[in-house]
Amino acid sequence: MNQVIAAVDIGGTNVVYGIVSREGKVLAKSVVPTKNCLEPSVMVEKVVEGLQHQLSFIDEPKELCGVGIGAPNGNFHTGCIEFAPNLNWKGIIPLAELFEKALGVKALLTNDANAAALGEMIFGDAKGMNDFLFITLGTGLGSGIVANGKLIYGHDGLAGELGHVIVVPEGRSCGCGRKGCLETYCSATGLRRTYAEMTSTEFTAKTLSSKEIVERAIQEDPIAQNALDYTAKILGAALANAVAYTSPKTIFLFGGLANAGDLLLIPTRLYMEESLLNIYKNKVEIRLSGLPEDDAALLGAASLIME
Amino acid sequence: MNQVIAAVDIGGTNVVYGIVSREGKVLAKSVVPTKNCLEPSVMVEKVVEGLQHQLSFIDEPKELCGVGIGAPNGNFHTGCIEFAPNLNWKGIIPLAELFEKALGVKALLTNDANAAALGEMIFGDAKGMNDFLFITLGTGLGSGIVANGKLIYGHDGLAGELGHVIVVPEGRSCGCGRKGCLETYCSATGLRRTYAEMTSTEFTAKTLSSKEIVERAIQEDPIAQNALDYTAKILGAALANAVAYTSPKTIFLFGGLANAGDLLLIPTRLYMEESLLNIYKNKVEIRLSGLPEDDAALLGAASLIME
Repeated sequence: MNQVIAAVDIGGTNVVYGIVSREGKVLAKSVVPTKNCLEPSVMVEKVVEGLQHQLSFIDEPKELCGVGIGAPNGNFHTGCIEFAPNLNWKGIIPLAELFEKALGVKALLTNDANAAALGEMIFGDAKGMNDFLFITLGTGLGSGIVANGKLIYGHDGLAGELGHVIVVPEGRSCGCGRKGCLETYCSATGLRRTYAEMTSTEFTAKTLSSKEIVERAIQEDPIAQNALDYTAKILGAALANAVAYTSPKTIFLFGGLANAGDLLLIPTRLYMEESLLNIYKNKVEIRLSGLPEDDAALLGAASLIME
Repeated sequence: MNQVIAAVDIGGTNVVYGIVSREGKVLAKSVVPTKNCLEPSVMVEKVVEGLQHQLSFIDEPKELCGVGIGAPNGNFHTGCIEFAPNLNWKGIIPLAELFEKALGVKALLTNDANAAALGEMIFGDAKGMNDFLFITLGTGLGSGIVANGKLIYGHDGLAGELGHVIVVPEGRSCGCGRKGCLETYCSATGLRRTYAEMTSTEFTAKTLSSKEIVERAIQEDPIAQNALDYTAKILGAALANAVAYTSPKTIFLFGGLANAGDLLLIPTRLYMEESLLNIYKNKVEIRLSGLPEDDAALLGAASLIME
């Protein structure tokens, strides 16, 4: 009987779940709106029911060998979500344990960016790569660091928060309560803030979306181009510092803002090279993730079990 | 027959070498001034002769099981010293190969701070610790990063250069040719520069030594105290950022400036806690290395073979 993996990706808006083959094919996928689950236990119940339904509809009989979960502030060591600011469930939630009890198989949990980094290593373009960084440029900036062929979880299971490296002392206010974090500049939200600053308007929900800013840059709007250039400048300098830690072969970019493609990649590479310590120059590649955007979260979560 | 390890530490002033037991005892130790060795091959010849002499004088017969070498800009993957700015030997020097040929045993090489980090893990206070940072505060700032129980060498063998993370954009000129590197602030030299700046004097060879500045701080000289406080402030903020990468359990400080003890440790801890992301607060310990200062370099080099 072929083995399959259940994969769950917890987001502020949706919980996406599905069944993934060991070859990295998403065999089934469904969604539950997160706001429909007032309690984590309700979410687990709905998702488990859905997974069992999915399993019963897959052609040949399959053996479920584990559940991988990607979640904001997910702690690999404890299997808990810990104080996630973007979820309505407060405090510490033992999510891996809840899934293990409900499904009777091993459950592993980590944060979404770590899961995606594993996805890149197992199903994407980092196959066989021992040292790389994976950066998600979405609403915030998430990261997963792989060194010596292993994801770095740190002693407390919470390593790899490059979005909260302070890059501008006393800089922009961050959701974490501090100032000048990388994600306040280099993320979809960061680009929107930069654009608002450059147009001397207030940063509100009405500010152009990052996608709209990128579209304007393509149409050669100089302010949009400057905003992207500023984003690349801060990202390039931050990545040059990151290289001095783990000396990765490749830095993979993923997520909404990464869709700007060469418009972001080319200047980021230039700014990074400019800032790199001599011994690292012309060695580190920055490229887009090889994971399919729509399935990356599930493939990442499934990778936890593949590992 | 008991196994012993040959250990070699290459410095700008001296090459120290010796025989180390598998229990971490330095059984013999000698020194060759680096300037007496115009060519690397001459150094290898002198050191190999010295090691053979040392081996013949050890009480019972011992089997040599390898040579560990710590060297500036030492590349673990290639076994070469690569363009070390503080050595007179230029270019790429295949030091591990030279020692292997001369002694007929395995030789491994890495940079001195990486070697010391391994020393802490195998013979010092990081025994059984999977995630920690080791920082040497000497003339410069060196570092070794251990995650998942393994030293991080990076894809090119040159990872872990925290001394060259840029902490002040357009800050102090660094020997690496860039500006604002951590080691221009947080090292014995950095403290001396800070003291010179605060006393509005030129930074020259006549500037007080870092030891003298620390002594003045103990005697409550306010400028010396401020200079140490400023050093701790920049170091604390930089370590808070470092924690967001690999989430270490402990940060070990070692080297001349670390001898300032609580005068540096206490404010560095406070500044680090102040800057840490919430999820890391009150979890990370900063303490002095548990390695004996005089033998740390040899124990570190020997650890390469123990691993």
